[in-house]
Amino acid sequence: MHVLIIGAAGMIGRKLASRIAADGMLCGHPVDKLTLADIFPPSVPAGFSGEVATEVVDLSELENSRRLIAQRPDIIFHLAAIVSGEAEADFEKGYRINLEGSRLLFEAIRAEAEVNAYCPRLVFCSSLAVFGPPFASPITDEFLTAPATSYGTQKAITELLLADYSRRGIFDGIGIRLPTICIRPGKPNAAASGFFSNILREPLAGQEAILPVEETVRHWFASPRSAIGFLLHGASIDLSGLGVRRNLIMPGLSATVAEQIEALRNVAGGDAVKLIRRVPDERIKTIVDSWAFDYQPALALSLGFRAESTMAEIIHAHIEDEIDGKTGS
Amino acid sequence: MHVLIIGAAGMIGRKLASRIAADGMLCGHPVDKLTLADIFPPSVPAGFSGEVATEVVDLSELENSRRLIAQRPDIIFHLAAIVSGEAEADFEKGYRINLEGSRLLFEAIRAEAEVNAYCPRLVFCSSLAVFGPPFASPITDEFLTAPATSYGTQKAITELLLADYSRRGIFDGIGIRLPTICIRPGKPNAAASGFFSNILREPLAGQEAILPVEETVRHWFASPRSAIGFLLHGASIDLSGLGVRRNLIMPGLSATVAEQIEALRNVAGGDAVKLIRRVPDERIKTIVDSWAFDYQPALALSLGFRAESTMAEIIHAHIEDEIDGKTGS
Repeated sequence: MHVLIIGAAGMIGRKLASRIAADGMLCGHPVDKLTLADIFPPSVPAGFSGEVATEVVDLSELENSRRLIAQRPDIIFHLAAIVSGEAEADFEKGYRINLEGSRLLFEAIRAEAEVNAYCPRLVFCSSLAVFGPPFASPITDEFLTAPATSYGTQKAITELLLADYSRRGIFDGIGIRLPTICIRPGKPNAAASGFFSNILREPLAGQEAILPVEETVRHWFASPRSAIGFLLHGASIDLSGLGVRRNLIMPGLSATVAEQIEALRNVAGGDAVKLIRRVPDERIKTIVDSWAFDYQPALALSLGFRAESTMAEIIHAHIEDEIDGKTGS
Repeated sequence: MHVLIIGAAGMIGRKLASRIAADGMLCGHPVDKLTLADIFPPSVPAGFSGEVATEVVDLSELENSRRLIAQRPDIIFHLAAIVSGEAEADFEKGYRINLEGSRLLFEAIRAEAEVNAYCPRLVFCSSLAVFGPPFASPITDEFLTAPATSYGTQKAITELLLADYSRRGIFDGIGIRLPTICIRPGKPNAAASGFFSNILREPLAGQEAILPVEETVRHWFASPRSAIGFLLHGASIDLSGLGVRRNLIMPGLSATVAEQIEALRNVAGGDAVKLIRRVPDERIKTIVDSWAFDYQPALALSLGFRAESTMAEIIHAHIEDEIDGKTGS
């Protein structure tokens, strides 16, 4: 089995490649080739017995997608995207990469299939940013996708293309709308959602962290381990019962900042909690208040997608995968 | 005021141009120029005192949109589309015209605005085909757009682009999701929905018509006159309160075939009803059964959009506008 990961140099892409390399199997079949593509050079995961190819490519050129698809990968993970802030700041770049890049990839698959029968599984990393306010509570699988950002618009459009190309049998696609990833490994970054991870990760490492919002703020979380689990599960399951509804809200843990802090206290003690410094930030509060936090991912649950059910599990996943295990950070 | 109608040679486009020509006004301002564009030669409406320009253009070429937009129309009606059946039969043509054509038009406006401040009103003719089964009952303004056809996908994507371009202030857009138009003027055609009009229009003209489905079939209707009213209202009202939710289910009349026939009997008598011949057609029944018929267009109603409230009104609109008036058929 040949697996292609597009966007392999990002946090999720690296972890996904490491996991597939470690498992050596996907969907019950041995993986003999792993192609890792990104606009940045992807790193080669350790311990894989099969062949690894790395490709540094710009997806907004049809020829690049054609070259990747000409190798007829059985499973394609499409994770490549300009992030939300950049897609908002740079209109043309956001549309070129997040919309045109996806469309050209889908067109490359269509062109390949016209030459010789081909219908790969395609797992697309979408986002809850496809939803915009005013939100329903909870947001169900039938809630309108009316995004409030260009990033969300580009994801929602790619979801529609994915559903139509799948309906026509050009590929067998699924869109995975990820919750906010927590605990995100690495250093604190400037993303408005960064503090949800920072207030756990930094104290666990004996470092101070800034909390810019009230403890009553509620959000929708899954660990990096769950995110990889969603993508692998999406690659493996039968999608034929989904009809055109192929873009799924992923399960997550609904938790407040207070519940995050309480879980940190239980796992790491009161001294860790003392490392959280409250520095209210109106800009971040306004952004966070515009996000939904209440989802009912009935379809994904019925298909066997599973996330953590306690914040303690999310913290333990981080300790096992990042601190003891020292992988993928 | 300069008004541009793209797709001016179609049934709705012709009626819209005739109405604007007759009114001579739009949004309280005199219309001094009307540009009628289509891939087929548009006809020039009678009785207009201003300048009329006709353009035969292929919208899937950016240069054509640029040329139309370089004249900086104040109001743009975008009605051009490959119809549902053709978009399903010809994948590439459907995406080229219905998606790329719209996107290039939007991009032409963005390019023009970058040269010199410009933010026209854009009224896009969308479709209830943006919804796919399983349907909610009723379908509300918050229901997911998960289309079951390529045509519906292309309309749903254009809606998303319209909302994002409007949010960014590139134009001031509104998407109008039309009900099934009844009574459609002209000859019976091969469209699966054609019988809804045929069973009224043909008997009114003393001709036989075929009814291929049960009388219990329910559907969502508006007259051509209402459709033009929606487009003109969409061109006129303040949209600033809509946020990113700029694509609206239009009001319609929910009626069964039995109710259509009863209205025909009341307006035209029992002899007209006898001209309806029942010839069950399983293919058409299957298609019609896959359509939704129950909508709750709360947002459009709150903005003052109005359709007929009885089938008799729909029949009288046809008699006045098409039979006595002899216009636009």
